[in-house]
Amino acid sequence: MERTLIVQTPNFLGKEVRVKGWVNSRRDHGAIVFLDLRDASGLLQVVASSEIAEDITDEYVVEIEGQIKERPRSMVNAALSTGQVELEAKTIKVISKAEVLPFDLKEIEKVSLPVLLDFRPLSLRHEKIKAIFKVEEAVIESFRAFLKNRGFTEIQVPTIVPTATEGGSEVFKVDYYGKNAFLAQSPQFYKQIMAGVFEKVYTLAHLYRAEPSVTTRHMSEFLGMDAEMGFIESWEEIMETADAVIKNIFKTLEQKCPAQLTLLNATMPLVTDKTPRLKMREAQEIIFQRTGRDNRAEPDLSPQDEREICQWAKETGNSDIIFITHYPTKKRPFYTQEDPNDPEYTLSFDVLCRGLEIVTGGQRINDYQKLLNNVKKWGNKPENFDLYLQAFKYGMPPEGGFCLGAERIVKQILGLENLREASLFPRDMSRIDFRLSREE
Amino acid sequence: MERTLIVQTPNFLGKEVRVKGWVNSRRDHGAIVFLDLRDASGLLQVVASSEIAEDITDEYVVEIEGQIKERPRSMVNAALSTGQVELEAKTIKVISKAEVLPFDLKEIEKVSLPVLLDFRPLSLRHEKIKAIFKVEEAVIESFRAFLKNRGFTEIQVPTIVPTATEGGSEVFKVDYYGKNAFLAQSPQFYKQIMAGVFEKVYTLAHLYRAEPSVTTRHMSEFLGMDAEMGFIESWEEIMETADAVIKNIFKTLEQKCPAQLTLLNATMPLVTDKTPRLKMREAQEIIFQRTGRDNRAEPDLSPQDEREICQWAKETGNSDIIFITHYPTKKRPFYTQEDPNDPEYTLSFDVLCRGLEIVTGGQRINDYQKLLNNVKKWGNKPENFDLYLQAFKYGMPPEGGFCLGAERIVKQILGLENLREASLFPRDMSRIDFRLSREE
Repeated sequence: MERTLIVQTPNFLGKEVRVKGWVNSRRDHGAIVFLDLRDASGLLQVVASSEIAEDITDEYVVEIEGQIKERPRSMVNAALSTGQVELEAKTIKVISKAEVLPFDLKEIEKVSLPVLLDFRPLSLRHEKIKAIFKVEEAVIESFRAFLKNRGFTEIQVPTIVPTATEGGSEVFKVDYYGKNAFLAQSPQFYKQIMAGVFEKVYTLAHLYRAEPSVTTRHMSEFLGMDAEMGFIESWEEIMETADAVIKNIFKTLEQKCPAQLTLLNATMPLVTDKTPRLKMREAQEIIFQRTGRDNRAEPDLSPQDEREICQWAKETGNSDIIFITHYPTKKRPFYTQEDPNDPEYTLSFDVLCRGLEIVTGGQRINDYQKLLNNVKKWGNKPENFDLYLQAFKYGMPPEGGFCLGAERIVKQILGLENLREASLFPRDMSRIDFRLSREE
Repeated sequence: MERTLIVQTPNFLGKEVRVKGWVNSRRDHGAIVFLDLRDASGLLQVVASSEIAEDITDEYVVEIEGQIKERPRSMVNAALSTGQVELEAKTIKVISKAEVLPFDLKEIEKVSLPVLLDFRPLSLRHEKIKAIFKVEEAVIESFRAFLKNRGFTEIQVPTIVPTATEGGSEVFKVDYYGKNAFLAQSPQFYKQIMAGVFEKVYTLAHLYRAEPSVTTRHMSEFLGMDAEMGFIESWEEIMETADAVIKNIFKTLEQKCPAQLTLLNATMPLVTDKTPRLKMREAQEIIFQRTGRDNRAEPDLSPQDEREICQWAKETGNSDIIFITHYPTKKRPFYTQEDPNDPEYTLSFDVLCRGLEIVTGGQRINDYQKLLNNVKKWGNKPENFDLYLQAFKYGMPPEGGFCLGAERIVKQILGLENLREASLFPRDMSRIDFRLSREE
């Protein structure tokens, strides 16, 4: 007999089926045992005699044959897609046993995140945690499909790089055949080079940051969804594209993940036709007027500022996302295009969503001499950027792009407390699978 | 006036257009200059007066306005999709200049691969080199779409790992906040863990191998297309899936990339309904009988053996792909399932295509105790595999999977001489963008 997936069992009423999965829970009622069986498609109630259910308990992998029956009306579980049926087990075969669990998988809200991460292979099996990664999958698919539809080419770029991409010390060093190499902080240079080849490109790339502290917003390795587009007439096109990508993600999730969103009690961020937009200095002025906090001379928004300006956007513009533009030239990477009207500031932008930056982008310098000068001005050696600079030496159109943090957008959509919850196996200063207090 | 993409210009006969792109070539004929203009969509012949074409030359980025005209019949270029038209330029605006090129981009067959890689941002602009990466894009899309359609979930797994995945010394070390970490040789452990969550998963992951030599078949960083599936009834299901994935890639390319395949003079590998399959020992016996080369006691096939057995498969089975199965237990990783009928050999397989391994896969041990014993037997410390082992401690179905090398399948389909040609920015012992002879 072929395996029947649990989600399909209601279509087999009165029929014999063979199902397989993990025991999600066991409840003993004298001679009768209720098992909830879980497979990738759903949950099914199984009724078995205590004889054939023996010592089967949580997370045992089993194969059960029996008949699909209608549940007594009083037993119908409306919250479950299979809630109107149950399987009357005839045989149960143990495929794989499980040791006693370190915690009750059905009560994970009582378990701290570090412990959930210590037991990630187990905690990931919880339906709410699984749901996060079905949402992440849909976010990524949406990003790719939308840009492909707009004529972007998907590219694959390396992560071992010869130079610390954007300067800064937060870069991991690799022993590369006895020489120094680094893990890329972003695919920036490569996607720009490729804008000189395919004009419009996107890539999914792992980004590495040796964050020297543990926060709820940072990890050492994360997934960037990067896009870059050449022959722009104006940097407005970059923002329009980023805006459309984000809104399309929200729309896609509503269509593809309603069950997960309900399960996780998530409400989609509010958007409006014209997403609110402020220059950074304007945002600081508004924050000052709303809170009295005078950060108007700061070169960036603090996390507190980001939350405040998002609150403003929601109150005044009914939007959970906002563009902040024109960050100071000195604080942005050397390749960022200055605003021709005010060279102290750049044609750069972040998108904040519910208090957190989820996108950063901008127009790049495409003039070779200016770029070369900036490399030097920022204190770098041009020879370390030789390959990158070639793209501009041999003709590059006006171009720009953006990077969307995959885990960050998932965190903000789902209202997760910690970015780590949006990563299957998060890495930070204190953990790579194991806690790093443990010496190697 | 809106920009017209070059591919669309034949639809604008007699009309004024504005096109943008790179100057692919310039030919002077007295007062008349012919420019071939290139954008992401194609090539267009432009006719201009020498006055307005001035000193415009190869790789200049320009914007040209003018009228689309029919070419004189003697000038029609059937090899070009725009070959029946040309643009009579009225104005040419230089967007970005280019310095003198280090080689003639139209004669790259005269340039060595190392030099092409030294000038990658430039050489990637050549239509034949670009075509390789449109093929790669289609290969990757085909892999994802096929498995998604079969109910696989896409997952994202980390590349910084605490333990050298499969043993061996060919692993890159990362300075991780003063502690040792490594770059993953494969996403193996994580995809297996996730088979315990979503049953069927796939992931695109960068694989890192500190290959101690430079060959035409290896790189230090490459792209693995990995799949893993739980609740298999037999390891035949894994091979069936791998076989179907490969054949679907070939079919997809024929549909989506006919122009690229023609340009690169590629012929699709031959396949048959039932792909030839040999045990490794059978293959060695055949090789011995065909060539007299006695490698029958060797634990693996040499590159020469791989080419020979592919030749046999083509001659006798009309197939450019072949499954080689049952590699020796001692030579496979500790997690490989033994053949119950002959524990000296494993339920493992490679797929060879035109003389090169493009897939490796097999069934895994899903019994916790047996896996734990093997970790020790292979000389590893169980505590270094704690997270991985948890997945089996808490119940794991029979499962297995495979990894398809993205660059390798592209190389074999297109008949490229060197694997590096199938990587935008290849890394090896002697190069990370730059040649490594140059000291940092």
